[in-house]
Amino acid sequence: MYYDVIVIGGGHAGCEAALAAARMGMKTLLLTMNLDQIAYMACNPSIGGPAKGHLVREIDALGGEMARAIDRSAIQIRMLNESKGPAVQALRAQADKRLYSWLMKMEMERVPNLHLRQDRVDDLIVEGGRIKGVKVSLGRVYEAGAVVATTGTFLHGRLITGDVIRSGGRAGEGAAHSLSDAYRRLGFQLGRLKTGTPPRVDARTIDFSKTKVQPGSTRPLYFSFSYPDAGIFPPENIITRLGPPNPVYPIPPEAEEAMRWRPQLPCYLVYTNPEFHEIVRANLDRAPMFTGVIEGVGPRYCPSIEDKIVRFAEKEAHGLFLEPEGWLTGEVYIQGCNTSLPEDVQWAMVRTIPALRHAELMRIGYAVEYDYVPPMQLKASLETKLVDGLFHAGQLNGTTGYEEAAAQGLIAGINAALYVQGKPPLILGRDEAYIGVLIDDLVTSEITEPYRQMTGRAEFRLLLRQDNADLRLTHHGYRVGLVSRERYEAVEAKRNRVAEELARLERTFLKPRDVNDILVAHGFEPIDDGVQALQFLRRPEATYDLIAKLTPPPQPLTEDEAEQVQIQAKYAGYIEKQLAEVERMRRLEDRIIPDDIDYFSLHGLRKEAREKLDRFRPRTVGQAARIYGVNPADISVLLVHLERMGKASAYEE
Amino acid sequence: MYYDVIVIGGGHAGCEAALAAARMGMKTLLLTMNLDQIAYMACNPSIGGPAKGHLVREIDALGGEMARAIDRSAIQIRMLNESKGPAVQALRAQADKRLYSWLMKMEMERVPNLHLRQDRVDDLIVEGGRIKGVKVSLGRVYEAGAVVATTGTFLHGRLITGDVIRSGGRAGEGAAHSLSDAYRRLGFQLGRLKTGTPPRVDARTIDFSKTKVQPGSTRPLYFSFSYPDAGIFPPENIITRLGPPNPVYPIPPEAEEAMRWRPQLPCYLVYTNPEFHEIVRANLDRAPMFTGVIEGVGPRYCPSIEDKIVRFAEKEAHGLFLEPEGWLTGEVYIQGCNTSLPEDVQWAMVRTIPALRHAELMRIGYAVEYDYVPPMQLKASLETKLVDGLFHAGQLNGTTGYEEAAAQGLIAGINAALYVQGKPPLILGRDEAYIGVLIDDLVTSEITEPYRQMTGRAEFRLLLRQDNADLRLTHHGYRVGLVSRERYEAVEAKRNRVAEELARLERTFLKPRDVNDILVAHGFEPIDDGVQALQFLRRPEATYDLIAKLTPPPQPLTEDEAEQVQIQAKYAGYIEKQLAEVERMRRLEDRIIPDDIDYFSLHGLRKEAREKLDRFRPRTVGQAARIYGVNPADISVLLVHLERMGKASAYEE
Repeated sequence: MYYDVIVIGGGHAGCEAALAAARMGMKTLLLTMNLDQIAYMACNPSIGGPAKGHLVREIDALGGEMARAIDRSAIQIRMLNESKGPAVQALRAQADKRLYSWLMKMEMERVPNLHLRQDRVDDLIVEGGRIKGVKVSLGRVYEAGAVVATTGTFLHGRLITGDVIRSGGRAGEGAAHSLSDAYRRLGFQLGRLKTGTPPRVDARTIDFSKTKVQPGSTRPLYFSFSYPDAGIFPPENIITRLGPPNPVYPIPPEAEEAMRWRPQLPCYLVYTNPEFHEIVRANLDRAPMFTGVIEGVGPRYCPSIEDKIVRFAEKEAHGLFLEPEGWLTGEVYIQGCNTSLPEDVQWAMVRTIPALRHAELMRIGYAVEYDYVPPMQLKASLETKLVDGLFHAGQLNGTTGYEEAAAQGLIAGINAALYVQGKPPLILGRDEAYIGVLIDDLVTSEITEPYRQMTGRAEFRLLLRQDNADLRLTHHGYRVGLVSRERYEAVEAKRNRVAEELARLERTFLKPRDVNDILVAHGFEPIDDGVQALQFLRRPEATYDLIAKLTPPPQPLTEDEAEQVQIQAKYAGYIEKQLAEVERMRRLEDRIIPDDIDYFSLHGLRKEAREKLDRFRPRTVGQAARIYGVNPADISVLLVHLERMGKASAYEE
Repeated sequence: MYYDVIVIGGGHAGCEAALAAARMGMKTLLLTMNLDQIAYMACNPSIGGPAKGHLVREIDALGGEMARAIDRSAIQIRMLNESKGPAVQALRAQADKRLYSWLMKMEMERVPNLHLRQDRVDDLIVEGGRIKGVKVSLGRVYEAGAVVATTGTFLHGRLITGDVIRSGGRAGEGAAHSLSDAYRRLGFQLGRLKTGTPPRVDARTIDFSKTKVQPGSTRPLYFSFSYPDAGIFPPENIITRLGPPNPVYPIPPEAEEAMRWRPQLPCYLVYTNPEFHEIVRANLDRAPMFTGVIEGVGPRYCPSIEDKIVRFAEKEAHGLFLEPEGWLTGEVYIQGCNTSLPEDVQWAMVRTIPALRHAELMRIGYAVEYDYVPPMQLKASLETKLVDGLFHAGQLNGTTGYEEAAAQGLIAGINAALYVQGKPPLILGRDEAYIGVLIDDLVTSEITEPYRQMTGRAEFRLLLRQDNADLRLTHHGYRVGLVSRERYEAVEAKRNRVAEELARLERTFLKPRDVNDILVAHGFEPIDDGVQALQFLRRPEATYDLIAKLTPPPQPLTEDEAEQVQIQAKYAGYIEKQLAEVERMRRLEDRIIPDDIDYFSLHGLRKEAREKLDRFRPRTVGQAARIYGVNPADISVLLVHLERMGKASAYEE
């Protein structure tokens, strides 16, 4: 049986990959070890946060699913960093994890061209350096035009708590050994990573009166953009249909306001303490992280609690969030407390926290160690260099996080489809999208620990805001066929209206006699001289709402458009500076490096740069410049050589 | 950590056991390998049917949960055999399997005293022939007053499709090996059984126009009795909150009437055919059922399709029901088609059916082989004879079916609690409940194949109707503390009103001049002579509704009461006959056999009877009489001996 695209794995990467390929008209097969675990949130019951929330909005702009699914299943949503600049503002939602998985499966079952099947993939069929299909555990061989592998933590997965080691990709589920062996046989270099998950607590055993309540947003917020093909908008929150929340969760007065626009549950903040730290320290000889039991490297930015206590020995307390895992369930996730300490230590340390003095653990935290394929073995399209038509996404690439997985899954699914269609791949620039930064980082760095997306990784983060993901990326989604023409046109219309309004504000002068009454009525100082409306808007206290009162536009703007006008006006200086830097970088990106270049024959390159360049084999000078261990002097040498070889050529996709 | 009762396993038996013990005030711990799989419907997405539906109503009358959960998550419900006598009428519902599991987990999380924990039990702690606790995979030991084991298909579970054998209790989940070994070490005799599950089909690939539609009931039906503590009544169907059903399922005009009282989906009937049978026969050399790969014995009354085709070679077609697995999902269960044939054979045979010509299988059928503990090692309380305080329920006892499991789980949970409380166990008679028949059959027979409840197994089935489960069993539920006083009193009030009405009808004479106008108006023949109202009701065409018009009761009866009056009047003769038989049997049941009886010293017993009696060690002469291989003559010999030994004594619990 032949499929254009086969996706291995039904996690957050696999779901986006399969949906994208199917929606692009590819006959697509998704193979998963357990159809009941589609889009399962194996760790934290939340989506978004700094940079991660950006990824979700970018996924939405490109025509992916994650934003829609979380909007419909969120039990809480907030805008982080609301008081800070627009570049670091980010959406974050708590999910009802059962509902999220349910909704995603339903969507997958309804999309035409998408076939779901339960079986474990045990082998890859490769002929002449090209993927030909996969073999599953029941023996069947499926032929494929392209394959997207999203194996998560299942390749040679080992679950570890204290000195107890079990085989498995997640608690209660098996591991995948054969596929790991197949990768080795094909000549891939494999590495070993680890991640971990905290214990879950029975909500009935928490003294919520000893926690700090963190309510959801009091104003309506959504990950998905409200465009014609976004489906229901505002997204219908299925939570509302489940009736009142589990009464075990207190909703104190300060959290009630957040309930007005949609049902929401708070989260609850607690802190570790010296006694907690002491218990951890006293048991480090039983901590697999420190006794050598765990070989894989864990995520630096999502460390286990024992890691945090050892690394930041001076800190006397770490914040832990108690997050309900759903609207009705009493299982509570302890965010910030992932651990592989022995079970008795987990109980003892958790119970030092006043709110958790009588806590009962329903699931014990554990570490999971798994094989990954270091992504320097990938092209920027997420296709492997070794096997044509084989794409990788998610934890297999050494990343951590549902959003990182989904973002890669979406791109891998798109590029698998484009590959089958004989079209060039979609490669997003670092100046276009966090997804571009993510993938560029993966394929140009030595990933030796789980990679997590962070705003700090983006050099153009004032351009890559969560508010303008639609303006940045919708045209790509439209071009590949994931976004409707109506939506694309609506985005372009928005872009035009914003530009027109900015132009109008530039040519409009506010005169004291026209505006002072209004200013005073709204509590502002009157002006003495005429001022350009755009300049006035740049004043810290001015908002577009005010400007629209002082000089109303011919047609009122939507809230989204008004937000864009305001941000683009206020940050114009910074934005222009970043755009100039983008221009400079783009010139380097346009310098393609020939595939057959022999770095060892280039004079003037330092030894380390030569080795790294030979190992990574960057596609462009821009990529070469970002490789750790290659410095600006090396790049100059490279540019001179490229000129001399006469082989450098401008390249436009 | 000490718990009064520990339940091993979170399936249908484990859920009832844990809920019962916790509701009886016991500090109860449920240990399961995966908290996300609580009350998972691993096989058919349905509950009820002949005898099984009776079990569910009995569970409800005793204060169990299954009826409430299915009433709230049913996507279809019907009364089977509606045109036949009341003894064989039975409720059957299709479940939304995700919702069912969700609701059960939510209930478990809210019941006081009930603690849920995810871990695998690896050992039983036994001291001096008494259970002391369990040891889990992470190493912890939990102490317990009593333990209920409900291990399902997990003990040394093997999943088999064609020549592919995988370790596991269910597809995608691991097996439990250590606990199986623990049982052997403790001296239990273990056996090997097998069961199987059919493939699941993608609803989008079914041509429903080539199926026969089987709609749900057009009148409101519920498993749970509408008594004060039944919770919401009529049970709130959560399905209605999920919005419209998956549009892939056609609801033809004949099924529309069933939608009026509640949202319902039809099922769809198809048939096998000679080509289907030919494919199966041609592949018997690859069928693990026939090649010796499967050692365990499968359920005779739920055979695999290959079994049916071989055993009933003359049959040219077998009916198969296409059952949606939920309101929103596109996965469809092929009821009647469980199989462990190789995957390619499954595809080929299914596709011979016109409606399934283009069917795509989402999950492949498989057999599962597992260890069980033959239940002749149990007392009638479901406590093991070998280890005091250790109770067994469900597939561990060699049964098949969710309802059988739940029924045993409930009784095991109740008796574990009673054991801890130092009270005598609840043992239901064969004349009281299908649950009594089920457990009596288990502990007095040699169970060598999976045991399924059937009406034919009950000798007093006219007494054990689904309609009177409340009248039969509520007092037991009340006595042990699972049913509220209000409910108990409501049932007794119902019993009294029914008896009073029957007495009134006995003393009321219908006179021609009083009733003939009414009779004629309702299309009946007028009567010539006066007739006793009760006699008149016994006429085939008469209903209680009619009688109530001819001679209205002082207070109108509820629908339930009217139904009882009608059934008890019409079947009075048969019911009395069965009651007399019950009396005779009860006398035998009252004859207790001393524990220390030496059957080998009893003269006159046949060799087979002597061996069987010695092996089963029945508690009463009634039990002895039901042992296969013990005949009435042996019973006479036994009675004579008991008299002579002067040890027989009347015994009332």
